[in-house]
Amino acid sequence: MKIGTKLATLFAATSALALGAGGAWSAESLQDVMKRRGLNEQDVLAATKTYTPSGKRDEFIAFSSGGQSGQVIVYGVPSMRILKYIGVFTPEPWQGYGYDEESKKVLAEGSKVDGREVLFGDTHHPAISETNGDYDGQYLFINDKNTPRIAVIDLKDFETKQIVQNPVISSDHGGAFVTPNTDYIIEASQYPAPLGHAFAPLEQFNEKYRGAITYWHFNREKGRIEPDKSFTIETPPYSQDLSDFGKLDSDGWSFTNSFCSERYVGGIESGRPPFEAGCSAKDTDYLHVVNWKKAEELFKAGKTKMVNGMAVIPLDVAAREGVMFLIPEPKSPHGVDVTPNGKYVIVSGKLDTHVTVYDFAKIQATIKAGKFTGKDEYGLPILDLKDTIHTQVEVGLGPLHTQYDSKPCVAYTSLYVDSMVAKWNYCEGKVLDKVSIQYNVGHLMTMEGDTQHPKGGYLVALNKLAIDRFNPVGPLHPQNHQLIDIGGDKMQMLYDMPLPLGEPHYVVAISADKLKPSVRYPFGWNSREDEKSAFAVRPGSERVDRKPGKVEVFGTAIRSHFTPEIVEVTEGDEVTFHMTNLERAEDETHGFAVSRHNVNLSLEPGKTSSVTFKANKAGVYPYYCTEFCSALHLEMEGYLIVRPANYKGAEGAGKAGTSYSKADYETRVKTNVETQKVIDGVVAYITSVNYKDFPTATGLFEDAADQLGRAKEAKDKSESFAAKQDWNNAMLWAEQWFQYQVKAADIGLRTKTFLEQNGAKKVQ
Amino acid sequence: MKIGTKLATLFAATSALALGAGGAWSAESLQDVMKRRGLNEQDVLAATKTYTPSGKRDEFIAFSSGGQSGQVIVYGVPSMRILKYIGVFTPEPWQGYGYDEESKKVLAEGSKVDGREVLFGDTHHPAISETNGDYDGQYLFINDKNTPRIAVIDLKDFETKQIVQNPVISSDHGGAFVTPNTDYIIEASQYPAPLGHAFAPLEQFNEKYRGAITYWHFNREKGRIEPDKSFTIETPPYSQDLSDFGKLDSDGWSFTNSFCSERYVGGIESGRPPFEAGCSAKDTDYLHVVNWKKAEELFKAGKTKMVNGMAVIPLDVAAREGVMFLIPEPKSPHGVDVTPNGKYVIVSGKLDTHVTVYDFAKIQATIKAGKFTGKDEYGLPILDLKDTIHTQVEVGLGPLHTQYDSKPCVAYTSLYVDSMVAKWNYCEGKVLDKVSIQYNVGHLMTMEGDTQHPKGGYLVALNKLAIDRFNPVGPLHPQNHQLIDIGGDKMQMLYDMPLPLGEPHYVVAISADKLKPSVRYPFGWNSREDEKSAFAVRPGSERVDRKPGKVEVFGTAIRSHFTPEIVEVTEGDEVTFHMTNLERAEDETHGFAVSRHNVNLSLEPGKTSSVTFKANKAGVYPYYCTEFCSALHLEMEGYLIVRPANYKGAEGAGKAGTSYSKADYETRVKTNVETQKVIDGVVAYITSVNYKDFPTATGLFEDAADQLGRAKEAKDKSESFAAKQDWNNAMLWAEQWFQYQVKAADIGLRTKTFLEQNGAKKVQ
Repeated sequence: MKIGTKLATLFAATSALALGAGGAWSAESLQDVMKRRGLNEQDVLAATKTYTPSGKRDEFIAFSSGGQSGQVIVYGVPSMRILKYIGVFTPEPWQGYGYDEESKKVLAEGSKVDGREVLFGDTHHPAISETNGDYDGQYLFINDKNTPRIAVIDLKDFETKQIVQNPVISSDHGGAFVTPNTDYIIEASQYPAPLGHAFAPLEQFNEKYRGAITYWHFNREKGRIEPDKSFTIETPPYSQDLSDFGKLDSDGWSFTNSFCSERYVGGIESGRPPFEAGCSAKDTDYLHVVNWKKAEELFKAGKTKMVNGMAVIPLDVAAREGVMFLIPEPKSPHGVDVTPNGKYVIVSGKLDTHVTVYDFAKIQATIKAGKFTGKDEYGLPILDLKDTIHTQVEVGLGPLHTQYDSKPCVAYTSLYVDSMVAKWNYCEGKVLDKVSIQYNVGHLMTMEGDTQHPKGGYLVALNKLAIDRFNPVGPLHPQNHQLIDIGGDKMQMLYDMPLPLGEPHYVVAISADKLKPSVRYPFGWNSREDEKSAFAVRPGSERVDRKPGKVEVFGTAIRSHFTPEIVEVTEGDEVTFHMTNLERAEDETHGFAVSRHNVNLSLEPGKTSSVTFKANKAGVYPYYCTEFCSALHLEMEGYLIVRPANYKGAEGAGKAGTSYSKADYETRVKTNVETQKVIDGVVAYITSVNYKDFPTATGLFEDAADQLGRAKEAKDKSESFAAKQDWNNAMLWAEQWFQYQVKAADIGLRTKTFLEQNGAKKVQ
Repeated sequence: MKIGTKLATLFAATSALALGAGGAWSAESLQDVMKRRGLNEQDVLAATKTYTPSGKRDEFIAFSSGGQSGQVIVYGVPSMRILKYIGVFTPEPWQGYGYDEESKKVLAEGSKVDGREVLFGDTHHPAISETNGDYDGQYLFINDKNTPRIAVIDLKDFETKQIVQNPVISSDHGGAFVTPNTDYIIEASQYPAPLGHAFAPLEQFNEKYRGAITYWHFNREKGRIEPDKSFTIETPPYSQDLSDFGKLDSDGWSFTNSFCSERYVGGIESGRPPFEAGCSAKDTDYLHVVNWKKAEELFKAGKTKMVNGMAVIPLDVAAREGVMFLIPEPKSPHGVDVTPNGKYVIVSGKLDTHVTVYDFAKIQATIKAGKFTGKDEYGLPILDLKDTIHTQVEVGLGPLHTQYDSKPCVAYTSLYVDSMVAKWNYCEGKVLDKVSIQYNVGHLMTMEGDTQHPKGGYLVALNKLAIDRFNPVGPLHPQNHQLIDIGGDKMQMLYDMPLPLGEPHYVVAISADKLKPSVRYPFGWNSREDEKSAFAVRPGSERVDRKPGKVEVFGTAIRSHFTPEIVEVTEGDEVTFHMTNLERAEDETHGFAVSRHNVNLSLEPGKTSSVTFKANKAGVYPYYCTEFCSALHLEMEGYLIVRPANYKGAEGAGKAGTSYSKADYETRVKTNVETQKVIDGVVAYITSVNYKDFPTATGLFEDAADQLGRAKEAKDKSESFAAKQDWNNAMLWAEQWFQYQVKAADIGLRTKTFLEQNGAKKVQ
């Protein structure tokens, strides 16, 4: 406490703010830190804008694609701390994802591909479900570019619930984006291929290779995509890229751009120029303007052909029925973004220095007037660029993606080649500000920036290269997400955040207060099906069912033991463990791993998970809890005994190596009685203050009371054995009584500390 | 720039420091931010201590176990930013780990277990290689508790190079820790089982179940563990826990504690008290004191028995030859930590309130004097606790692990039940300070805190529960690593860091300047074998080898195309792609994924990776680069054409959908000539300043020059086709010429910006 008060005085002198009690540190201290760490004043201001002290929350939660990791990344803004990786297309054992039977089923929906097993995804564009064009925080969708699929993640528990494979296309990019009420999720193809995963030689590229745009129907009540209520529109083989749905004025329409309307096929190995030359040769590609409401009508009217089980509107039908129109766009675009008011569609041609602002009203007027410059080879009407644009603005080299501010008409566009972000006004068509990023930015993200009501405040640049930004970690570098303050007129760079796993493509961020995830499941819950598990058992009802060649364990987990603790099976048996976590306390997850087996369950409070495996070799396999759940966590263990097939020995537990006397029992009881006094003191404090005003404290206190209830049960057993002078069992149950006391004390102390630190007051 | 200068004045007035030019923001601004974000002065100071501006580096690099994720986590201190997840025991597609043949081979060393495939690990304790008792930054080792294994990670490239399975034990915990010169890596068992993965019924627990401690020999020159030069010592079935090696005075000895010397076997399902009661019933367990130098002599003298291929020193030999001694330790300990000077061994019994400081000299004297209180049932001599301790210090409830400061005699011990960290003096035996953490801390980490020369400065508390600390993300919570400033007399909490994936158990941190990872591989490198790949090809030598039923592609990747771009095979073929990344530029990683196949390679600069799969179904499978590597990244694509088995059609590329005229060619060339002028201007700037004084700029500029060289090649091709009036090819190669110009401009501009921002000066 020797640190002085100079700086505190300084702050006080220059501010009327009631600063925290913090108190004791000196001006020298802050200056010394700045000097030692080489920070300037701007750095300190930036630090103050992102730093989030212990226990404080972030304003926004970002959901990022995890690229080839096959996962979704969750982080907070402005702290830029990564909160969770969610397993989606790739197994991930910490979550038990792809290791328990329930999640294996979800994963298998997506991973079984023509007899192959595809255990990774190249996640690209996450989308949060919307109600009336604004994020509602209920569901997250994400696409896989490599194996065209859409995954549904429930934001109640941040778990993947469904994966649907696209039966028509062979790669995707233009997904996931949702309609303003999340009726449909769009998924557009990227590299052309024969539809339905069919074969056709490259000689027939123009005739038989196609793109397609799928509109997946989402059933909000079920929280699941319904493939039989979904449809696809065939497109020319133009290498479609990104998509977006219209909103407000443009609701009912969707937009998809393309980057190889040249229909070029490379072959550098045969002396042909590579794809990159041939696909960027023309000055323009095509923006596809789609009347999806009209397409939906055609689908419902049965004007589709079935392709590999999916209803597809053929190109000629789409052309004839006014479903799809083309407008030239500057070549090789990599972003199409509808403005919050739905009036404009902004496209960046990445080999052009401009952003192009299309005016939806002009597009409609041109279509209505039937003013087409012609048709493409597939019969689609082409509109004149000049007839449909509001303006074009020169923003810099390599413009890619655009996101929106809460300020009217203000947009941000990433500049890949310039390694900059441009802030500009799309109504007036002028550049407002630019900031350098490190390096080579792909997508941008503003807070709720692709909804009808962007929130402003922050922008994140998703940089593809980090190069020298971070301490080196070998040839494979992290990516760099940079947080930029867009609250003022000028953008201010705040923070560099390395991405430790995967290459994010796009991120969406939602106001944190819109998310209401649960902290526990209802008792005995199958989280993937969102229903009571058929395999849950209440404490005391644990059992082992045996049939010839099969052993099925219905077990439970609680601090700090499994029931059962010993399971004996015979070599060759198929063994199933159904494990239910009996805890109610927040964050009291248990794991369940079996030595030298591919078994790892993540059992959050209330969850029931199952795993089935073959006990293929006689031996002794300890099982244990993989989450450090209490002081006695290491003792949360058991044995799977796999007997040789012809084994004739006795079953049952072993003889203990130690036995206990009456004196041992009495010593133990003495300690327990003393421990109880300490606990009583803590309980007296808690009940003397207004703990019921603090939900966290109430939850903790209830948990402590639970533990004390269990302590009482163990105490009763102990005393009953003592009455029979069975000192060994009396002593052991007394020890168990003490263990519950330790757990109660742990939680009780945590409650007390919480109440003291959060200003609990004495009640009368 | 309207923001005022009040605060700047403020800072200037109170400090003689030359603060950065930052300049333009007001006192109101900092105050406003503090008010808006609810920060007090202490928060600002803490922020200043951890915030690391763009491009600045961390002082220390931490390597954390990833728990059940099976990975290792790398993060920076004090910024607490996660830099990388390294795939170790679990496949991870972003890194291609478990997806390319080279890494599959490493993973398979560990994952093939008795005919089962174990594709996760429960990583616990990482250890950095040491030279003379200090970290040397060359290798990292980590153990898997679930399937006893040790992995070797090379810190040149942060890749896993080797996994060795332990053939003797069935679970481990007491690893990895290294001898002062990394001759051996220790791996001690946890849950007792018959050695050699054999079967024995639980009735024979005392007779046939055992623990064991394996000393793996590490060959520093090869960078690999040598199993045939490694040995194991059998131990009683006491549920061994953690281990540590002696150093300086105690070099040649190792220490392993235990938590169930009761040898209790649970069975709650049969009415027996659970493991947690029986394993914590006695007041003491046993610290195992091992003379491993002596054991090494016995091993070399052949005084071992072979157990499942591993040389094991039997218990009776260990007892007879003075290899192992037991000392009582307070019950259920969970940490054994040798002090930096090697004189003391500190053990915490987690159900005791004390830490126990053993004096190695006293242990030696007692052994030498043959002063034993008796022997255990297995013949091991037992020393008296009182004869061997220096002191016991009451630190609080649930003490677990101890780490060391750079200040003499200062240690930090985690208190699980109290949710605190105690700072204390182990020489004088007194508590100096305590700080609350959130919540329930397991291990602690100080900087190089388990070496002979801890660096001080920071401490990280590895908390097992986060509960309410972060924005909620569903029932499964992140863990919470809290950064604590230990530079002063009082500990100051600085930062809460959520762990988004996995449950870390232990972390080690090394001074960043000791790590010298490479940023690229030598050309055509097999990174897992650390040798030139037999499958690398130089540009221009790419080829496809065909044998009946087999197609082998020797390809390359470079911004922005693969060679070859089209590969045609027949249904049923076994297809192999060997891909070499031709890039030299830092961070220019390419990916290689094949649509709807389980194929994803991560090709860092210089690397050659291979993948083999069955083309089991006729179809069209685009392949593409999964890392956004350049503006034309999306065009970095190709087609794997799988023809039906009986297909008779023609091979070869398709007809292009677009053709070009002389006018197209001339327009293109005009743009290219203009582009070249821009590039020349950038080059003129770069060469006018002292760019050679900046390695980063020099590297970038060399890369830009490479791209210009390729542009020249494409220009020559273009002009040669133009001379033949083949305008189509002339145009396409002119476009390719432009593409290389774009890449050169991109890098050139980045170089220019770097030089401008880093104070490059004009040269004469």
